[in-house]
Amino acid sequence: MWHQTEVTKILNIRYPIIQAPMAGSTTPELVAAVANQGGLGSIGAGYYTPEKLRRDIEDTQALTDKPFAVNLFVPEYNEVTITQIEHMKEILSPYDEALGITPDDPTVSRDDTFLRLIDIIIESGVKICSFTFGIPETLVIKKLQAAGMTLIGCATTVEEAVINAQAGMDMVVVQGFEAGGHRGSFLKNALDSNVGTMALVPQAADAVDIPVIAAGGIMDGRGIYASLILGADAAQLGTAFLTTEESAAPDIHKNVILASEEADTVLTNVFSGKYARGLRNEFIEDMEVYEADILPYPFQNQVTKKMRAEAAKSGRSDLLHLWSGQGVRLSRDGEAAELFRELVSEVDEVIAGSN
Amino acid sequence: MWHQTEVTKILNIRYPIIQAPMAGSTTPELVAAVANQGGLGSIGAGYYTPEKLRRDIEDTQALTDKPFAVNLFVPEYNEVTITQIEHMKEILSPYDEALGITPDDPTVSRDDTFLRLIDIIIESGVKICSFTFGIPETLVIKKLQAAGMTLIGCATTVEEAVINAQAGMDMVVVQGFEAGGHRGSFLKNALDSNVGTMALVPQAADAVDIPVIAAGGIMDGRGIYASLILGADAAQLGTAFLTTEESAAPDIHKNVILASEEADTVLTNVFSGKYARGLRNEFIEDMEVYEADILPYPFQNQVTKKMRAEAAKSGRSDLLHLWSGQGVRLSRDGEAAELFRELVSEVDEVIAGSN
Repeated sequence: MWHQTEVTKILNIRYPIIQAPMAGSTTPELVAAVANQGGLGSIGAGYYTPEKLRRDIEDTQALTDKPFAVNLFVPEYNEVTITQIEHMKEILSPYDEALGITPDDPTVSRDDTFLRLIDIIIESGVKICSFTFGIPETLVIKKLQAAGMTLIGCATTVEEAVINAQAGMDMVVVQGFEAGGHRGSFLKNALDSNVGTMALVPQAADAVDIPVIAAGGIMDGRGIYASLILGADAAQLGTAFLTTEESAAPDIHKNVILASEEADTVLTNVFSGKYARGLRNEFIEDMEVYEADILPYPFQNQVTKKMRAEAAKSGRSDLLHLWSGQGVRLSRDGEAAELFRELVSEVDEVIAGSN
Repeated sequence: MWHQTEVTKILNIRYPIIQAPMAGSTTPELVAAVANQGGLGSIGAGYYTPEKLRRDIEDTQALTDKPFAVNLFVPEYNEVTITQIEHMKEILSPYDEALGITPDDPTVSRDDTFLRLIDIIIESGVKICSFTFGIPETLVIKKLQAAGMTLIGCATTVEEAVINAQAGMDMVVVQGFEAGGHRGSFLKNALDSNVGTMALVPQAADAVDIPVIAAGGIMDGRGIYASLILGADAAQLGTAFLTTEESAAPDIHKNVILASEEADTVLTNVFSGKYARGLRNEFIEDMEVYEADILPYPFQNQVTKKMRAEAAKSGRSDLLHLWSGQGVRLSRDGEAAELFRELVSEVDEVIAGSN
């Protein structure tokens, strides 16, 4: 049976198919739909407040009694000056004015939000926690382990996968260059590593003893089964689920993905200060000349946040972060549960066809 | 039987495994070894003179009676001024002086070499011809078709694959971002498309009626079988064969690959004027400041040629084009025939393990 792997056994799910935690684009309905179909749904809580996380977990639990994951961004502390912030606000002012908004002032978030989110996850009875942008400190890991939590890390190179394993992660997502949204890189020398899924998965699987989850460019049953063949124990799909009805991505975002081609995406840091893959648009092109002025994460994210929210509302794809992987020609709309069932039957067909 | 595909039937080979035509690094011994094991060997004749091609074909035919391919670079005409050439020679002079060489003057090669190579291929009885950097003009294609030749194109985007099919190619290599050596892109909008193998193969396979050959990051039986699952009818491996005994790559090149990691390669145009993937070294880093001065292909290739030849002789990996894909951790030394047999048995194991 193709759907029994180390990952499905540990996570107690039926199929080795994971809905990627797309921060800002997941909903309880999406996560529960995937969970109810036998996959792993993930709440993308990267930007959540404690209140929002508590509500999302409760709402998800009301819709499914199956396991699901919560994904957090490991906090990162960068320095920025008021002058830099003011300069970026000036660069952005034509867009903000055109949309009639005043951007929020970025705030350094050296607060205890991350630890509060951790506590909420433990208290809520969620049993799977995944991380992006690095590895939490040892005390946090021990606390989660003591609560019986299964931990999933993220890596974009073999070295990052090894460090995840050494830090006590139970499994690790290896994210290839094709993946949409933020690159999960956290080591300095991984930031421009850009390793594709086809090359990354087998090399990572050879290097670590924990199960590996493939991500990046996987959009259908062929990609899922190819991932397993390459040595992964599950496949994680983001863009494929982003265009479903239950996804919180704005309609304009979904529609642009559904109409795009594989060569339309680029890696850019102009929206958040961290590199992420999205469909090329006017804002990305306009910002090319300001490469040196982009604020470090999370400041750039904060200062462009209102602009993007307003762009989403007004259907302005030219100013929106159109996160997307390279597999866009294979994107489809419809309900998440329906997509999930199609994925499963596609894998069955692939296996039948290859025998 | 996993090894029967459209590609194996058309090419009359036993296994859907192709040794990539690595211009300058193939030998009759390498091509024949792969052919004799039941794969498709390819003579990388991209930079060949007519005399060299005739000799290589004869030598290969003396070593095998199995089919093999000859790969040609489709000529491309760029303009360059004497001033630009002199400026690049000045930039390169410290390296040339250190190695005690005088670089060749680049010459515009608007001659009939390409057509002479085509004639030699036809006369020699070779039955498979593959192309990189575009599609030959219609008259050339008709001539090859009239001679009963099977034609293989190369694409880095879906659009390029479609154009190959429309132009009469019998099959098309779709080259993912992970691939070592030159990117085969020929459409302007494909030059920075950078689509990974996992995303490119299924999308291309859906778009064309001719068989698709996957390339990029494929190094072992897992990668070969995953390629077939993704929708390809064969897998093409370059770096995997580059480190074999029969490859003409300098020992220093092979040794560096064997000791490298997946994140060590970059795309660079500093050696040839066209983007190619190789291991990062001092020359690439030194040239970063001269980005605007790099001559267009083939001029940059010609002006750095002697430097690279001398670097190879003196074991100077800092000045050599260390072409390599991203799968380097999976590279191995030994004989090509042995590697080929290992690849076949690895696919067998993958299939046995997945049932």
